[in-house]
Amino acid sequence: MNDDFTDTEKQGFYKAIYSRRDVRTHFTSEPISDSTLTKILHAAHHAPSVGFSQPWNFVLIKNNNTKKTIKESFQIEHERASKLVEDPKKSEYLSFKLEGIMESPINICVTYDPTKFGPFVIGRTSIPEAGIYSVCCAIQNLWLAARTEGIGLGWVSILSNDTLKEQLELPDHVVPVAYLCLGHVTNFETKPDLERVGWLPRLDLKDVVYYERWEQKEDSGWKQIEQLIKTNLDTLK
Amino acid sequence: MNDDFTDTEKQGFYKAIYSRRDVRTHFTSEPISDSTLTKILHAAHHAPSVGFSQPWNFVLIKNNNTKKTIKESFQIEHERASKLVEDPKKSEYLSFKLEGIMESPINICVTYDPTKFGPFVIGRTSIPEAGIYSVCCAIQNLWLAARTEGIGLGWVSILSNDTLKEQLELPDHVVPVAYLCLGHVTNFETKPDLERVGWLPRLDLKDVVYYERWEQKEDSGWKQIEQLIKTNLDTLK
Repeated sequence: MNDDFTDTEKQGFYKAIYSRRDVRTHFTSEPISDSTLTKILHAAHHAPSVGFSQPWNFVLIKNNNTKKTIKESFQIEHERASKLVEDPKKSEYLSFKLEGIMESPINICVTYDPTKFGPFVIGRTSIPEAGIYSVCCAIQNLWLAARTEGIGLGWVSILSNDTLKEQLELPDHVVPVAYLCLGHVTNFETKPDLERVGWLPRLDLKDVVYYERWEQKEDSGWKQIEQLIKTNLDTLK
Repeated sequence: MNDDFTDTEKQGFYKAIYSRRDVRTHFTSEPISDSTLTKILHAAHHAPSVGFSQPWNFVLIKNNNTKKTIKESFQIEHERASKLVEDPKKSEYLSFKLEGIMESPINICVTYDPTKFGPFVIGRTSIPEAGIYSVCCAIQNLWLAARTEGIGLGWVSILSNDTLKEQLELPDHVVPVAYLCLGHVTNFETKPDLERVGWLPRLDLKDVVYYERWEQKEDSGWKQIEQLIKTNLDTLK
C-alpha cells in the first residue's frame, strides 16, 4: 500500500467525514448483511487504543425483548429530561425524534473493559481516562465505516446505563459507553438534524481554534492560518 | 453528493482506517502547510456531538517553551510509570519511544468545554460523559484526516493534566482530553509499534464481539455472522 493518498482516495475519505449523520429516522426494514456488519466491526476494532489495550467489546443486539426494555428506559429518561427545560424549548425538545431503537434492525452496545491487558497499560498511568477515550475512537471508526457502507447509525445517550448493564449482564467493572442503532436508510440528511431545525447553529471553525493558549485568537506565529481558518473552507463540506 | 460510495471511495476511506498509526518517530522538519492543517481541523470540527453541542476546542501549539514544559512533564510521568512494573517489562517499557513532542512541528491540545451551549444539552441529561465522548470522536476524525494528508500524529497521554492546564491557561471547568503531536514523517509503519515489538498481540475480531449479552459467543440468531467474524477478514487490513 502506497503511503500517499491519491485525490480520489482523499475524496472518498472526506465524503465519509462530511456525509456521516446521527440517524434517528429513515430506517428501512432491509437487513444488514453479515459481510457489511463484519466490515464495520473490523474497522472499529482497528481504532487506536492506549498501550494497544483494545479495551472495547461490541455486544450485538437484535432480540426484541432487549430492545423494548431499552426503549422503555429511553422513554423514562426522555420524560425526565424534558422537565429540565421550560416552554417553548420543552415542546420543541419533545417534538424531536431522538432514537430509532425498534426501527433499526441491529443495536450495538460498545463497552469499556479497564481490566483488559491490565493493570499496567502503557499510557494509562497518568490519565486513566485514556482507556475510555480509546473506546470512543473505535465508535467513531464504526460510525464512519457504517456511513461508507450506506448504513445509518444513531447514538442513543438518553437511557439508563443501569438498565443497560442489567439487560446485557455487564459485569460491574465494565462500562457501557455507547448504545448504537444501525440500519439501512432511505436517505441521509445533508445536515445534522438539530442544525437543520434551528435548535443550535454550526460554530465556525475559527470559533473553536485557539493559538498557543486558551482564548488566544491571534498570535504572531500563526498569522497566515488565522486568515485561512476564518474562511471556514465551506467548500470542503 | 450521491449517497452511495463507489468502490474507489470505499477503498480511500478504509485506507485511512487501516494505515493510521500512533506516531512517535520518523517526524521530519518539513512544516505542515496552513491549508493541510486547516483541512484536518475542519474534519475534526465535523465530528458528531451530543445535542450538536460541539464542545471541543483546539489549542494549536508551536512555541518551544510550551513544548519543553510539556516534554518535562512527560519525563516525570514516564519515570513515575516505570516504577509500576518489574524487570524485564520495566526495561522494555523504558526502551520505547513514547512521544514526539519536540520533533513534531505542531502540537494540538484538544479540550472539552461542558458549558458550551449548556446547561441543557440534548442527550447529555442521563449520561453527562456523552459530552467528553463527542470530543474523542473529533480527535479520531482529526487523526484519520491527518493520515489522509500524509501527516503523522501521536497522542501523548503520559503527562500531567495539571501542567497542561497551567501552561495553556485552561479555565477550571475545561478538560484537556488529548495532547497530539503532528508532523510530516519519512514513513508510516504497517503495524502499531506495540504490536510490532511484541508487547501485546492484536486481538481477533471474534474476541471482542458478543451476541445479545456479555460473554455470549454463540447465539442461534447470529450463526452466520459468527462464522464470518471468525475468519477475521484479514484481507481487509
